[in-house]
Amino acid sequence: MIGLRRLSLNQATVRNLTAADAIRLCVKHEIPGIGLWRDRVAELGLARTAATVTAASLHISSLCRGGFFTHADADARAAALADNRVAVMEAAELQADTLILVSGGLVPGSRDLALARRMIADAIAELVPVAQDAGVRLGIEPLHPMFCADRCAITRLGEALDLAMRFPADTVGVVVDTYHVWWDSQLAADIARAAGRIAGFQLCDWVLPLPRDVLLGRGHLGDGFIDFGLIADLVLVAGYTGYAEVEILNAEIWDAPADETALKVRNRFADLLC
Amino acid sequence: MIGLRRLSLNQATVRNLTAADAIRLCVKHEIPGIGLWRDRVAELGLARTAATVTAASLHISSLCRGGFFTHADADARAAALADNRVAVMEAAELQADTLILVSGGLVPGSRDLALARRMIADAIAELVPVAQDAGVRLGIEPLHPMFCADRCAITRLGEALDLAMRFPADTVGVVVDTYHVWWDSQLAADIARAAGRIAGFQLCDWVLPLPRDVLLGRGHLGDGFIDFGLIADLVLVAGYTGYAEVEILNAEIWDAPADETALKVRNRFADLLC
Repeated sequence: MIGLRRLSLNQATVRNLTAADAIRLCVKHEIPGIGLWRDRVAELGLARTAATVTAASLHISSLCRGGFFTHADADARAAALADNRVAVMEAAELQADTLILVSGGLVPGSRDLALARRMIADAIAELVPVAQDAGVRLGIEPLHPMFCADRCAITRLGEALDLAMRFPADTVGVVVDTYHVWWDSQLAADIARAAGRIAGFQLCDWVLPLPRDVLLGRGHLGDGFIDFGLIADLVLVAGYTGYAEVEILNAEIWDAPADETALKVRNRFADLLC
Repeated sequence: MIGLRRLSLNQATVRNLTAADAIRLCVKHEIPGIGLWRDRVAELGLARTAATVTAASLHISSLCRGGFFTHADADARAAALADNRVAVMEAAELQADTLILVSGGLVPGSRDLALARRMIADAIAELVPVAQDAGVRLGIEPLHPMFCADRCAITRLGEALDLAMRFPADTVGVVVDTYHVWWDSQLAADIARAAGRIAGFQLCDWVLPLPRDVLLGRGHLGDGFIDFGLIADLVLVAGYTGYAEVEILNAEIWDAPADETALKVRNRFADLLC
């Protein structure tokens, strides 16, 4: 079991809070880690965010996010890469455990999945030396196949892992997000194969029915269908020593009082994973 | 390319029609195959459906469907199996190319995916001798992972294939439905591996956004993101000689005039696959 000392709250779970408020919330509820989002970091300022986190004695388990590499024209691809370089620098300054990469879906106007996947691999190859110089670890996150067309052509942990393995393990790993991978019959085998490559572990539950915007259909741990104990054990057995980050994108949870959300995150985590 | 002489219309595409009307529609629009649903067959009567199809010189590419094997109590499992035995007899009487199996999701009240998958395998093992005696071929259909919790724990073609391969190839095959498998980076390898095991080939497009009921979010060929030419070529190269069945579950298409739908199905198929 992972234990509360490795619990992290991803800022997207309390999306209405500023970075400063999210940091305060974690301190108040004795959540030792936080996953930050770039837009909220930019609001507070990079140096000030880093200082605030340090003063709060929190650990930054991830910076969300880089990626979205798939574009039809060269200028857009170059712009995406430039933005990812900036994201690497931000992750370095924040000393985040990983910069999470959501790779991008099909190239606009194209049905060629292989092209999208080559474009993603090429972009990551260009980003690797930048990350290496900065001492930042990239985390390739496979998204659920229902996001394949529009958000992420990397749809399985095994696929993310095969891609990561082209590069040094300390620079490129994979992110295991329970929501995206729980259904995969190869999951246990792929997590075992990912030993030394797990750059992040995110948790939320699969709940039904899916809402109109399926991006926001995630649930509190225990409200849905995922066996968290099993997946956490697999991740631990694979030697993962990082944080377990609860990231729940859900408009109803965003509208709930943040204290209530943090309490629920902590309690559910304690019940299911401690 | 597959060619119009192997086009089939699955009845679910024109769900408001009776079996007799769907059969007439196929004849009118020179669609030589039809995929039938058990509830509509029951309305018309089994023998009468068989006679009507024969009189119309249509070919029955599939009967939909058996499966839904995952139940918490033994009585419900036995009832499911009994119903599947009846479905096998119906498929035999209709001389359908395959009885499509949608396996069922998690066992109600359980988060144990391995249990659901064992239960599915056990049920199919019980059904195989029945199918063998009746000369019916079972087609295990993997559904898209977004249906894993509630409809089908078999989420990838490779997983369906591994299950099918425990049994004789002429009794148990797999169904390739573009909507469910298009996103899979292992798809080409798994279709190749499925040579001699492809019991059915269904087509519809992945369109966005997903509707409120994600079961009904499918689109006409060409309206979405799927490269049909690529997948059809893979299926043909694997030696598939059966029909290509257009099955589109979509409430708007159900509300459209059936003639318009049949025309569009035929034209899009001709454009993309002939």
